[in-house]
Amino acid sequence: MKLIQIAGYKNSGKTTLVTRILKMARKSGINVSSLKHHGHGGLPLGLEEKDSMLHREAGAMIAGVEGAGVLQFTRERPWELEDLVNIYQLLDVELLIIEGFKQADYEKVVLIRDEADLHLLEQLNHIVAVMTTLPIGKRYQSLPVFHPEDYGSLLEWIVEEWYKKQQ
Amino acid sequence: MKLIQIAGYKNSGKTTLVTRILKMARKSGINVSSLKHHGHGGLPLGLEEKDSMLHREAGAMIAGVEGAGVLQFTRERPWELEDLVNIYQLLDVELLIIEGFKQADYEKVVLIRDEADLHLLEQLNHIVAVMTTLPIGKRYQSLPVFHPEDYGSLLEWIVEEWYKKQQ
Repeated sequence: MKLIQIAGYKNSGKTTLVTRILKMARKSGINVSSLKHHGHGGLPLGLEEKDSMLHREAGAMIAGVEGAGVLQFTRERPWELEDLVNIYQLLDVELLIIEGFKQADYEKVVLIRDEADLHLLEQLNHIVAVMTTLPIGKRYQSLPVFHPEDYGSLLEWIVEEWYKKQQ
Repeated sequence: MKLIQIAGYKNSGKTTLVTRILKMARKSGINVSSLKHHGHGGLPLGLEEKDSMLHREAGAMIAGVEGAGVLQFTRERPWELEDLVNIYQLLDVELLIIEGFKQADYEKVVLIRDEADLHLLEQLNHIVAVMTTLPIGKRYQSLPVFHPEDYGSLLEWIVEEWYKKQQ
């Protein structure tokens, strides 16, 4: 399974980019899947919180609920990204697009909206491409840089160059 | 990993029994987890439906969202119980209590409230115990039968006899 992360701050266009990559990869016949980190505030659980919480309080390490194509797990200890990646691997995914989890060690495309975001280039590892209108400095000259409106070129680069190089 | 199913119609006491087993197993030092089938109507997804659905519509075979200890997957094709069981196995669970999925082929405790439920004994396979006040017929004489209020005896049987026999 190949993995690529899409990293950037809130409102930097991560979700739009992820959906574009999903469409392009699917059109290319790749069994592609996505994983998103929800950040703060938690998920709205509604009704199903009830039984999951009963099970968790009773001592279930993991409480799972499945229905209508949706699978929901709550777990005693936090999920590690590695656990999540292993689940996708188990389910025969060929390409996993990860939105968020920017501290993780997978290869990543970084979205830079403005100068306040530039420090991400110093802080994150395994950057393989950047989407920005800003000059990003000599240290990253060897990286492909794409204009935020030029999805076409980035998608082509991901599916035709990056993805094939992983195999 | 050992698995046991708790089968019975709505309002037959499945959730109460599952939480009792979870408590007892946890107290016995077993790494126990639960899986529940939600039946009709689907899960309430709320806000997070938005991005998951965008990802799914864009072609993700599986769209996952993680946040605040909750992991939620939507998938293009239906989940098979075997996939779900494999995920728990991957996560090092020792005992999985499955509520629902009564047509599945794992060993199961069946809850019989009244005569209308008796046909479950004919329809379900791998029954290892029954919880009921009704006489259940000669064919099942060899099965342990527990009174619906006598959780203590059933729990002891599950953890002390059934569970140990599986190892």
